[in-house]
Amino acid sequence: MEYEEPKFFHVMEYAAAADGDVVDMVSGNPDWEPPAALRDALSEYANGPSEAFQYPPSEGIRGLRESIAARRNVDPDRIVVTNGTGEANYLAMARAFERDAGDEALLMDPVYPYYPGKTELLGGEPTLVPTERDGSLDIEAVRAAASDGTALIVLNTPNNPTGAVYDVENVREVVEVAEAVDALVVVDEVYDHFDFSGRFESALTLDSERVIVTSGFSKSMAITGFRVGYAVLPDEHAFPAKARHMLVNVAGSRPAQYAVAEALSATDADYYAEARDRLADRIDAFTAALDEAGAAYTRPEGAFYVLARFDGFPGTMANVKRLIDEAGVAGMPGETFGTARDEWIRFALVTPRAVEAAERLVEYFASDRKACREES
Amino acid sequence: MEYEEPKFFHVMEYAAAADGDVVDMVSGNPDWEPPAALRDALSEYANGPSEAFQYPPSEGIRGLRESIAARRNVDPDRIVVTNGTGEANYLAMARAFERDAGDEALLMDPVYPYYPGKTELLGGEPTLVPTERDGSLDIEAVRAAASDGTALIVLNTPNNPTGAVYDVENVREVVEVAEAVDALVVVDEVYDHFDFSGRFESALTLDSERVIVTSGFSKSMAITGFRVGYAVLPDEHAFPAKARHMLVNVAGSRPAQYAVAEALSATDADYYAEARDRLADRIDAFTAALDEAGAAYTRPEGAFYVLARFDGFPGTMANVKRLIDEAGVAGMPGETFGTARDEWIRFALVTPRAVEAAERLVEYFASDRKACREES
Repeated sequence: MEYEEPKFFHVMEYAAAADGDVVDMVSGNPDWEPPAALRDALSEYANGPSEAFQYPPSEGIRGLRESIAARRNVDPDRIVVTNGTGEANYLAMARAFERDAGDEALLMDPVYPYYPGKTELLGGEPTLVPTERDGSLDIEAVRAAASDGTALIVLNTPNNPTGAVYDVENVREVVEVAEAVDALVVVDEVYDHFDFSGRFESALTLDSERVIVTSGFSKSMAITGFRVGYAVLPDEHAFPAKARHMLVNVAGSRPAQYAVAEALSATDADYYAEARDRLADRIDAFTAALDEAGAAYTRPEGAFYVLARFDGFPGTMANVKRLIDEAGVAGMPGETFGTARDEWIRFALVTPRAVEAAERLVEYFASDRKACREES
Repeated sequence: MEYEEPKFFHVMEYAAAADGDVVDMVSGNPDWEPPAALRDALSEYANGPSEAFQYPPSEGIRGLRESIAARRNVDPDRIVVTNGTGEANYLAMARAFERDAGDEALLMDPVYPYYPGKTELLGGEPTLVPTERDGSLDIEAVRAAASDGTALIVLNTPNNPTGAVYDVENVREVVEVAEAVDALVVVDEVYDHFDFSGRFESALTLDSERVIVTSGFSKSMAITGFRVGYAVLPDEHAFPAKARHMLVNVAGSRPAQYAVAEALSATDADYYAEARDRLADRIDAFTAALDEAGAAYTRPEGAFYVLARFDGFPGTMANVKRLIDEAGVAGMPGETFGTARDEWIRFALVTPRAVEAAERLVEYFASDRKACREES
């Protein structure tokens, strides 16, 4: 296959090299503190017995798998702890393709760019399926796209970049489509703690042999660098996924797993609620400023991204660079996320400077921007 | 593909469930302390800024890549830091196959079982190539096996399980064979700190566009559970390997990378020499006991395994289980490592009880074992 550099790197490098001060709204790195228990556990581990520095079980340390299983209400044998949600998605998607059930993956448009990237890495063919204007699932479009060649359907809820929280009954209908064409459905729920709608329900509640749920602690515990995620697989797919995990990675990193396991037991609901409420406040302030700037936007039901559209200013890489240079705000070009939102720009709200960024956007789009552009 | 459970798990589970006391000589987990600087760095990280808990660069944190580059005398751009040597081998082997240069991998027999496992995962076909009786490379056998269909040749020096340290001139000849058939050579040097022969020389000294060197810190720093390894790739292969790394794992675990980077700078040669000397002493004591037991064995030039053969007691899974139950010593069946040493049993010397185990073997094989077996 041909590889290409991810566009978010390109944007981040451009922003870092800019002359002026730039508010980074590109990366999805939480800007709040991890749970205190996580720091404590990592310190404790650092001073613990050297036996604990050796290989963990390949499928993940037992305490962590059991905590996840209890939280998810599934048998621990169905769980493989992975090197972040990224690896969980890789294993789950690989499982769909290696069944000789076709080469096609149906991906919802707009799409998180890693999904087509992983599809191609695994020898599959991505097909983008439109979603509704508000980001919700278009079941008829999924049904129309599905065929005998479809091996995999990937969903992400709460969604990056649209912020949509899928209705679980719609997810059930997608699973029925998958059943009809012998496909698996991978549901990436990594943003499950960031549900502002109160409607989020895990696809595990569907109790389907077709559904693999992936998730991780990168976002919920503000530790994207620790790389601790997991997949919950139907019984028949758990062993092959674990085998691939072992052949690719042997095991995940044990200090990180230990710290997450301890933090998962010790951290109460307030920690997660506080992060969620902080984001909800930022979304309010940011979207209010977007109103003032005369921008269209989608108000996220979940996750922590806002898609915005400025009149006469489509979400191209060139315009995103212009915004970095002229407004001091870095977002992601909508064209990065497939075809459905290429007029839009995605802003990640995981910065305490979100309101400042919004004010910059207001000022920029209020000023005689077009004149400036023509002069430059 | 069909997956099967690795045999070492099976042996370890059997040993753990045994009634009596069993000396574990199965796993390759170092039994000594990691560098003090590694513990200190991990503690420091645990109490550091939360920004450092977020995504590291996908290719690895800069300080670590630069330290490796300096030590290896290569450009840092050629290095990708991986989730252990296991992932480094996966990326390197994938690179060989994705060039459309054939499907065959030549693997030296006896073989580390992950190599054929990874080959099959990647859609390749493993071919076992015999080595010399002492475990050194049989260049004529490599030449005879190589063809247009050969995409990859995998070498491991110091070698697991034979303990052979390859003459770098022999490695050069293998690289010439690879050039002739458009194959890449992956040289796994994870045991490079455990060279008792004084002859080990890295394949990087060959300065070949055909050679990918893999290694890691699991063994040298006694941290198999941290999962920090790396690949050093020729320029043209570095970017595609990094792209695959990103698509599969996003990045490696940052606390582990940070601790290793600090330990790599702060740890002096004495630390590594002490571990090596301790192993050399154990090898002396263990092989002396094998002499007493009348066993044949290969004296390792490097790594930390001894292959032993007991008369009339081939290295089958059944005999390994018998040794667990009747002698209280757990080794690995030679049949696990391909066909060349299926009469042999591998013992890992990373236990302070190696001499005790050897005494148990002496006693077991001195007693009227065969009579016991017939009675039982």
